[in-house]
Amino acid sequence: MDTPTPPQAAFLERAAALLGSRGLTRDPELVRPWLTDWRGRYTGQAIALASPGSTDEVARLVRLCGECGVPVVPQGGNSGMCGGATPDTSGNAIVLSLRRMNAIRRLDVAARETVCEAGVILQTLHEAAAAEGLRFPLTLGGKGSATIGGLVSTNAGGTQVLRHGSMRAQVLGIEAVLADGSVFDALTPLKKDNRGFDLKQLLIGSEGTLGIVTAATLRLLPALADRAVLWAGVSSVSDASRLLTHAERIAGEALEGFEIMPRHSLEAVLAHAPGTRNPLQGKHAWHALIEIAADSAHAEALPALVGELLESAFAAGLVEDATIAASEAQAEAFWLLRDEIAPAERALGPAMQHDISVPVTAMAAFIQESAPQVEVKFPGTRVVAFGHLGDGNVHYHVLAPEGAVRGEWEEKEGKQISHFVNDLVTKWQGSISAEHGIGQLKRDELGRLGDPAQLGMMRAVKQALDPQGLLNPGKLVPLAPEPASP
Amino acid sequence: MDTPTPPQAAFLERAAALLGSRGLTRDPELVRPWLTDWRGRYTGQAIALASPGSTDEVARLVRLCGECGVPVVPQGGNSGMCGGATPDTSGNAIVLSLRRMNAIRRLDVAARETVCEAGVILQTLHEAAAAEGLRFPLTLGGKGSATIGGLVSTNAGGTQVLRHGSMRAQVLGIEAVLADGSVFDALTPLKKDNRGFDLKQLLIGSEGTLGIVTAATLRLLPALADRAVLWAGVSSVSDASRLLTHAERIAGEALEGFEIMPRHSLEAVLAHAPGTRNPLQGKHAWHALIEIAADSAHAEALPALVGELLESAFAAGLVEDATIAASEAQAEAFWLLRDEIAPAERALGPAMQHDISVPVTAMAAFIQESAPQVEVKFPGTRVVAFGHLGDGNVHYHVLAPEGAVRGEWEEKEGKQISHFVNDLVTKWQGSISAEHGIGQLKRDELGRLGDPAQLGMMRAVKQALDPQGLLNPGKLVPLAPEPASP
Repeated sequence: MDTPTPPQAAFLERAAALLGSRGLTRDPELVRPWLTDWRGRYTGQAIALASPGSTDEVARLVRLCGECGVPVVPQGGNSGMCGGATPDTSGNAIVLSLRRMNAIRRLDVAARETVCEAGVILQTLHEAAAAEGLRFPLTLGGKGSATIGGLVSTNAGGTQVLRHGSMRAQVLGIEAVLADGSVFDALTPLKKDNRGFDLKQLLIGSEGTLGIVTAATLRLLPALADRAVLWAGVSSVSDASRLLTHAERIAGEALEGFEIMPRHSLEAVLAHAPGTRNPLQGKHAWHALIEIAADSAHAEALPALVGELLESAFAAGLVEDATIAASEAQAEAFWLLRDEIAPAERALGPAMQHDISVPVTAMAAFIQESAPQVEVKFPGTRVVAFGHLGDGNVHYHVLAPEGAVRGEWEEKEGKQISHFVNDLVTKWQGSISAEHGIGQLKRDELGRLGDPAQLGMMRAVKQALDPQGLLNPGKLVPLAPEPASP
Repeated sequence: MDTPTPPQAAFLERAAALLGSRGLTRDPELVRPWLTDWRGRYTGQAIALASPGSTDEVARLVRLCGECGVPVVPQGGNSGMCGGATPDTSGNAIVLSLRRMNAIRRLDVAARETVCEAGVILQTLHEAAAAEGLRFPLTLGGKGSATIGGLVSTNAGGTQVLRHGSMRAQVLGIEAVLADGSVFDALTPLKKDNRGFDLKQLLIGSEGTLGIVTAATLRLLPALADRAVLWAGVSSVSDASRLLTHAERIAGEALEGFEIMPRHSLEAVLAHAPGTRNPLQGKHAWHALIEIAADSAHAEALPALVGELLESAFAAGLVEDATIAASEAQAEAFWLLRDEIAPAERALGPAMQHDISVPVTAMAAFIQESAPQVEVKFPGTRVVAFGHLGDGNVHYHVLAPEGAVRGEWEEKEGKQISHFVNDLVTKWQGSISAEHGIGQLKRDELGRLGDPAQLGMMRAVKQALDPQGLLNPGKLVPLAPEPASP
């Protein structure tokens, strides 16, 4: 770490007095792991790592940062996909880790609510809920490191959005520290509250640029009593889409997940992940992974429902083949095939990854029309789209031509490909970030493609709520089209 | 109407050129009905009534208003409860009616979505959805006049919020005109979209102070195949609350509504509304109206579910008596008893009405503890609380002492009572506006009781997005604590 300038030294002295030795460190060994995002795309520098132990400490630290003009980069589990929690390389910012604030303050079984501090790890919340016969209906690959604060700040998605919505839908209340160090306290869960603007919604998904989430009140649901996991081979992504509509009609709200993957992804997983096997005998162009779930009130009717779904899908010619997981272990094995796609595809070589959405009903057509366009324009590439068809959200990977050099290819052709894909998505009225957020990674693309009226609103709101621009600078909010030149 | 000043005359000339004779009038006969809110509490003046026919016309009018410094008061069905759509008495503002923009632009049966312009009347949407075997899951007393734009702008509630959420939960996309006349176009429904701040959420419930909603994309649900409507007599509001928990456990998501009313309200309705009759023989301190609903996939199981619910409620001693509506006509008759409470209570004499919420699990205790406090402090008054127990939201009426003079009493003791009730609600961490909004009526109380950090955020956002302060001035956003004196 660089030797601090005199003003930085003065700031550090006051911060140390505020937070104590557990709460503030400049030890390079301790700080270094948090200066690089987990995908290894961004590495920054920081004046120090602060780990406050309470909302009050966060508030006082943020106030101090305001006085001293020190930028603040909030960080949870550091498992974001867009570099949103990584400081820039100036070394001027402090990284504010919320990991020490990891108390579950309250878990009310009767009201089915919990108040979690920002540093509570998703997996920990799952376990705490399960111990009370409840569940928290959001999960994702990084559940062992992702924190509640990060999930709220990025409005995280995952594999249960189809039925339960993304993080926004789970949040009943929020506590956050604002740019001036005041505490936004709206943890009390009110089912109805029309006292003006819903500022809570503004903080959710703002990636720490408007305030730092320190705690959230979250809804819980009754634990699942049973689930049925189906694996179907279908002939096209259009058929997968028709199967989705069919499953929604038959299973209604019992439909908990609907994921798709092309043959390429399945074969990549089978080759890459030890112990995996194909649930079906034959080969199919596309596969659907369907989960139907029931709480205790509906568990009895589940087998009949699943039987009806499958039978009618065969009768309608929607599936080529299909099977139901015969045990919980097999259900887990089906889901493992889905969860292993990203690492398996990565192992095959360089690829540009796009987390995109279009209206659910348009997704099949989008994949079918856009993939050839990409592959023609960039010869030798291959489009692999997989994921949350039920949410109109796929991970749209473009694999590099054979022989492409990792690192170099991404910087050159890769960037052009991402521009092209983002242009296509925008033409289809979709989103260039369905669930991963904007962070550093997509800020310029959002500035290039975003609607000017909405970008103007975003900048105005950011300026109003963080006039010094100290909250997570360089993230999410695109620069104004014509920055004032000196 | 007053003779316009020369700048007003210049504005009117340009507005007339823009909107034509159908779109702009100063005819007192035509304008007058829209200058008083429907409860007759507020009467204002206006420079003219504008009725644009398209989003583009709204945008151009708002831009013109910005150029000329003319305040804009947007108005839908003029059926709001808090004077939010009524101009002030200065006569400087233009009333912008959205009623001419009443097209259902799209109704997609397969995707279960519709795009409605702001002026579409709720009842019209209900009928359009029903014609396609679908339903729009929000309803309220004013459905014959309330418009989609008004419902979105006020985040309206109603009797189905327990199951389906308030208006915010129905909105998949929005189109709005911002203060600078730009069009915020986010009508495309994306299930997942993490491109920065969710500005749509900021516009919902902002009562036209941040932008003027011109259209919305709304979700639709499969039509109900069947419903069961129960009427139960219970001994206390605590028992009603226990019955709610019980019903949620048994019926789960089939529980569509749970309303309560005290004996006083039922007797007022029976005395006031012709043709009504008590569903039960005996007298009970409280009554619960419960609706369990099923779409076609679940209709078969409905009778068994309702039977189980009732039987177990009797067995647990939660109800003193109960009955199931034997026909759709009887179900309607049960609901009529609920819908007639407000007019019936009003007919009895003056009352201060409060649309309040506390956490659902705290509502019974709140009613039991607060009512005696009010009645002791204001001798001769009587508290009558009824409504949406399932949402933690009741209409908390305080009836005047016998002999109180209507008009005079509200202005004097009535205001003190409302302060006292709002203080109690705030102490219980509740909301002084659960579903009716703030408008003119509650702006000062919000300023008095609101959290300073949140009020500061609201003012900063308002200033940022409407720097001239022309969008619905005097509504919702409380004045700063120390207004600049001249």
